[in-house]
Amino acid sequence: MPVLTWLIPIAGGAAVLYALWLAQDVLRRDPGTPQMQEIGGMIFEGAMAFLTRQYGTIAIFATITAVIIGLVVGGVSDGVKEIVLKDGQADYGGVVVGQWTEGLMTGIAFLVGAACSGLAGFIGMYISVKSNLRTAAAAQRSLKDAITVSLRGGAVSGFLVVALSLLGVSGIFAVYSNLLGNPPAIAPFLIVGFGFGASFVALFAQLGGGIYTKAADVGADLVGKVEAGIPEDDPRNAAVVADLVGDNVGDCAGRGADLFESMSAENIGAMILGVAIYTVTGKIEWIIFPLVLRSFGVLATIVGLSSVPFFTREGSSQNPMTPLNYGFYVVSVLSVIGLGIATKSLMGDAWYWFFFCGIVGILTGIAFVYITQYYTAGSWRPVKEIADASRTGPATNIIIGTAVGFETTALTAVAIGAALVSSFILGSHADVQGVPAFTTGIFGTAVATMGMLMSAAYILAMDTFGPITDNAGGITEFSGAPESARHITDSLDAVGNTTKALTKGYAVASAGLAAFLLFSAYLDKVKERLGRPLTGELPIDLSNVDVFVGALLGVMLVFLFSSLAIRSVGKVGGAIIEEVRRQFRDDPGIMAGTSRPNYARAVDITARAALRAMVAPGVLAVGMPVVTGLVFRYVVADLHTGDVKDSGWLAVAGLLMVGTIGGIILATFLNNSGGAWDNAKKYIEAGEQTDEAGHVLGKGTPTHAAAVVGDTVGDPFKDTAGPALHVLVKLLSTITLVLAPLFIAT
Amino acid sequence: MPVLTWLIPIAGGAAVLYALWLAQDVLRRDPGTPQMQEIGGMIFEGAMAFLTRQYGTIAIFATITAVIIGLVVGGVSDGVKEIVLKDGQADYGGVVVGQWTEGLMTGIAFLVGAACSGLAGFIGMYISVKSNLRTAAAAQRSLKDAITVSLRGGAVSGFLVVALSLLGVSGIFAVYSNLLGNPPAIAPFLIVGFGFGASFVALFAQLGGGIYTKAADVGADLVGKVEAGIPEDDPRNAAVVADLVGDNVGDCAGRGADLFESMSAENIGAMILGVAIYTVTGKIEWIIFPLVLRSFGVLATIVGLSSVPFFTREGSSQNPMTPLNYGFYVVSVLSVIGLGIATKSLMGDAWYWFFFCGIVGILTGIAFVYITQYYTAGSWRPVKEIADASRTGPATNIIIGTAVGFETTALTAVAIGAALVSSFILGSHADVQGVPAFTTGIFGTAVATMGMLMSAAYILAMDTFGPITDNAGGITEFSGAPESARHITDSLDAVGNTTKALTKGYAVASAGLAAFLLFSAYLDKVKERLGRPLTGELPIDLSNVDVFVGALLGVMLVFLFSSLAIRSVGKVGGAIIEEVRRQFRDDPGIMAGTSRPNYARAVDITARAALRAMVAPGVLAVGMPVVTGLVFRYVVADLHTGDVKDSGWLAVAGLLMVGTIGGIILATFLNNSGGAWDNAKKYIEAGEQTDEAGHVLGKGTPTHAAAVVGDTVGDPFKDTAGPALHVLVKLLSTITLVLAPLFIAT
Repeated sequence: MPVLTWLIPIAGGAAVLYALWLAQDVLRRDPGTPQMQEIGGMIFEGAMAFLTRQYGTIAIFATITAVIIGLVVGGVSDGVKEIVLKDGQADYGGVVVGQWTEGLMTGIAFLVGAACSGLAGFIGMYISVKSNLRTAAAAQRSLKDAITVSLRGGAVSGFLVVALSLLGVSGIFAVYSNLLGNPPAIAPFLIVGFGFGASFVALFAQLGGGIYTKAADVGADLVGKVEAGIPEDDPRNAAVVADLVGDNVGDCAGRGADLFESMSAENIGAMILGVAIYTVTGKIEWIIFPLVLRSFGVLATIVGLSSVPFFTREGSSQNPMTPLNYGFYVVSVLSVIGLGIATKSLMGDAWYWFFFCGIVGILTGIAFVYITQYYTAGSWRPVKEIADASRTGPATNIIIGTAVGFETTALTAVAIGAALVSSFILGSHADVQGVPAFTTGIFGTAVATMGMLMSAAYILAMDTFGPITDNAGGITEFSGAPESARHITDSLDAVGNTTKALTKGYAVASAGLAAFLLFSAYLDKVKERLGRPLTGELPIDLSNVDVFVGALLGVMLVFLFSSLAIRSVGKVGGAIIEEVRRQFRDDPGIMAGTSRPNYARAVDITARAALRAMVAPGVLAVGMPVVTGLVFRYVVADLHTGDVKDSGWLAVAGLLMVGTIGGIILATFLNNSGGAWDNAKKYIEAGEQTDEAGHVLGKGTPTHAAAVVGDTVGDPFKDTAGPALHVLVKLLSTITLVLAPLFIAT
Repeated sequence: MPVLTWLIPIAGGAAVLYALWLAQDVLRRDPGTPQMQEIGGMIFEGAMAFLTRQYGTIAIFATITAVIIGLVVGGVSDGVKEIVLKDGQADYGGVVVGQWTEGLMTGIAFLVGAACSGLAGFIGMYISVKSNLRTAAAAQRSLKDAITVSLRGGAVSGFLVVALSLLGVSGIFAVYSNLLGNPPAIAPFLIVGFGFGASFVALFAQLGGGIYTKAADVGADLVGKVEAGIPEDDPRNAAVVADLVGDNVGDCAGRGADLFESMSAENIGAMILGVAIYTVTGKIEWIIFPLVLRSFGVLATIVGLSSVPFFTREGSSQNPMTPLNYGFYVVSVLSVIGLGIATKSLMGDAWYWFFFCGIVGILTGIAFVYITQYYTAGSWRPVKEIADASRTGPATNIIIGTAVGFETTALTAVAIGAALVSSFILGSHADVQGVPAFTTGIFGTAVATMGMLMSAAYILAMDTFGPITDNAGGITEFSGAPESARHITDSLDAVGNTTKALTKGYAVASAGLAAFLLFSAYLDKVKERLGRPLTGELPIDLSNVDVFVGALLGVMLVFLFSSLAIRSVGKVGGAIIEEVRRQFRDDPGIMAGTSRPNYARAVDITARAALRAMVAPGVLAVGMPVVTGLVFRYVVADLHTGDVKDSGWLAVAGLLMVGTIGGIILATFLNNSGGAWDNAKKYIEAGEQTDEAGHVLGKGTPTHAAAVVGDTVGDPFKDTAGPALHVLVKLLSTITLVLAPLFIAT
């Protein structure tokens, strides 16, 4: 074991301790006025009730799925073979883990992954909800205080997610290799279930939360602002609490589960890729490298986050984004140093090639921060163009917004493509004791992905900062706090919108970079099953009709999945509207302000409807790759002439790879068009759009009304379908990785 | 030469004669009242002015491109090698056509293809514009008369397009093989330029026309109905004539060029696939089969179209769609018979496998007629859902419309996938004298494509019927004809909307089926250049980073291209609005009805702006595959380790194949969401949407206003970007086919 292995538990432990320290720091702060505490309590109860119910449902699904996985893997696999060096290739020896043991271990890994993901989401949420209230209280005193509380609250979630992923993956790896006495080369194949468990929970958490939050938002707005003519966040609207709860369950818990699974799946995938190099070189470093690099990232992030207060100027008119940006630079610089140490110590003479791969990843992360800002922030051309088009009504607002959204896919695709090609080329130049250039090239893309994700905890902290400040604003409004406090929460909210958009760009970029690594892991699994050397190539031929049709179905899947997700928001929103209307009708005292609406009932109805609505897209996501694989394996393959038996896994490979491409592009469109519409509305509200005669076209004008239409359309795009697509593309990778034997006829 | 070869000139000649007979029948009919003739004259002049200017611009582009192609192909190719039988494989002999001769022949073929496409569009347009007027005149007498005139006018365009494609491809094939003494096996490779020329013109015709028609439509509506408060098609609106001109240049000329290039490119691609089988079997039948099958299709269509009047009930309340459907069934049944004769006579003992492939194609065509109707006609769930969502405003209308549009990709992808897999499997079972199953399988997909396109002339006639009746309605309104005539044109217009939607579904399905055939032709070209046997496989490995990144760029290309196309409509629409406003301002007599607006100026300004706007997306479409191929060939390949030289053509293959998948899916979304929004508006206008209390929500209600927003958003989707994407995916095939040598390092 290399010395640096010890860094893994140290960094993981440090992250947990740091998160605990942050949590108790937030919790001991002033929870605000009694009114604030009252509404804060309602949000807390609503959020916890939803999460309990949601995770309860997910737990049942997950347990059933774990049993199925165990039975399927146990039934169709023929055990895990030892991986040995044969003629300079990573080839196979005898079976070392029997098929039913493999099934059992995969099922258990699935449950552990699912449980860790649930835990990370739950704890992060708990602290976030508590932080909302304390941020609202702090906003009555000063901006700096409010920033500190909200950022620390967000950081708890960020660090717990990263620590749980690091400790979870390395822990189960340690147990499945050292403790159970399996060779380290096969352990990564045994823990793939962990990644699937994490994606499984993430999919449902992101879907359920995303549907809940936007349905509550759209429903509350339509029934309150539009129908009843009362302001946003007005206490007379029974849906207001549901709306505030939604921000927490969608943005905090959902995004946390999303990044948890990204990091876990990518770690495991990279470890699998490392196996081939380990077998040839005999150095375990290649397998544990991803975990070590992640550990350096965690330490860099702790320092970077702690540095933010030093960059904050008390009482000045400093943009709150500025210290956050400086903190990110600190993380980036320290990450480069950590990357240098990790590659130099673990990767032998050719280390510098992989160092440059990691640099490519770090630069890609930074590039996406800027690309996203350009397309969704009000200071640049795209948002201005949409605001301008709003002058001729909602139709032109939507047309130009769609055009802008389509356009944003260009830079995204070019940046991801350049990162993939350059990291592959850099990696392939590394001369590692006769390992084929193709294998080190793929590992180079894995290093780039790992390099980019070193700053994940920081990004996640900034992301959770968004809903915390958003909620703090709601609490401030709802509890009738003074204007000055509202002003502070408003300025934080604007920053929160930017950081939320950044996280999505970052998530898309990491999904794109990781795509290649993850389906290389799938191909390694297929090679293992087919008995082909891990260091050899295995072409997925697009001119093969099975691959091509799989690819067509993959792109279709991301469109159909988005359709279901978007439509769910409409359906659940309808349920809320009906309930609020009923309350207004049954108790006229609500409108008069003499009696309180039944918030809890509105929260409960939304929760039930959202959970029902997450089932259809969830089942589609899990079911379609499986059904495609089975149909091609058992029906199409039989219809082919001769002894063609590869249809199953080939069609799945096409679906996985091209579905990932489609998912990245479609998610980019959905996220960025939604963000741009939102900010075009804000741009007009800020009074920056004028008509031809130079009159300001602010709130209350038809131009603003047109922009509101765009904003509403963008909501389910950017907060439900887009983020759910990030999870979908990774779920495709993990599900196919775990169930690969099912699609392979032998 | 098999006897059936003679069918080709016979069918081509019959189609031309039939078209001429129809044309003179239409032209000798009553051209209506003097008012009608006046407005008809203006439309005629405007349309011809635009077309002259447009084809003038395209001619310059095309000539330059032809020279470049000639120089590039001549410069980089090393001549065309003879194709001979070696060890049972279709392999190569010596060079039979020198490189500069190849360049010259390719450049000439490009120009001939471009000229034929231009001619087809021009003549079809000419007759359509004349038919508009005569349909309006006939509508003053009877429905049956109006149907006859408009359908015959549309049929002229349909038959000319099909005949020009058939005679053009077979003519240039005859010249390049028999006349110049080249072996028939290499002639198909020499005429690929014809397909590229056709796509080139189609792209610009579809883009220019699509932008023109929707910009004029949106501009006329916004400045007339919304700003000035005057009715649609009111003579005081200077943009009205431009709007009427737009229907002709977009829907007639654009769609004609689109289908012309589909048929030409697919014929040539299928002939190239036939070469491999010809070389092994020595039977020229495999090369000319596509042309013979097309000839049977033409004859079937002449009978089918002539049968329509027999199904039309004079004076009854028959739905005008009914006789058209019966006519389509006649064409389908006769096509099956023709398919049987062609396969039985030309394909030897295993003919029935290919017969079934053709049946798959014919069934796919029929399936798409129903799928499109389900998603875009008012009688089914999707349109009703959108109409329902309009009750809560434009935002929910757009959200649900988008969800419906995304959903429509599912059946489309499944139907295309099933057709591809089944025709491939059927074809691969055909035992053709030792030709590999893979080769006959690919040929099976080609036969399916050909089978589907047998009815192309009929579909095109129905399509052109749409804009003719639409324009006849405009002329009727504009010239102040009696209410009863307007009623007849309205009922025809509704049918025209359906037939236009059907054509788009048909075009997408044919693009999907043809995709496989066309890039198999690209791979054959690459094999020829690399010296690999035509009957061997050549994997396009998706796990190769160059292919994967090419694929990512391909999907991005279709989004970026759509962005540019959609945005152009907004820009050009703005130019029209400004001009109409200026005319209202400068001459108050226009609004008072005492002086006539300057229609010609509005037409001219729209034309100039539309032509400028078509350049950017056109250059992107042509430039991106070329730039990608060059960058990967010269930069990326050099950076790879070792002797990797395949990056160029592999990246292009990824871009082509996955770009095609993305294009099919995105076009389906754009076409169907647009159609569904349009019909949701019509559904509400027909008084079929009620509120909860059962009150009808017709014109003038906020629900209708919300539906109008959706309709306006859908316009550039379904009439500009969607149809342009059909052309784009085929242009990708033809451009890569012609320029393949440029991307291959040897």
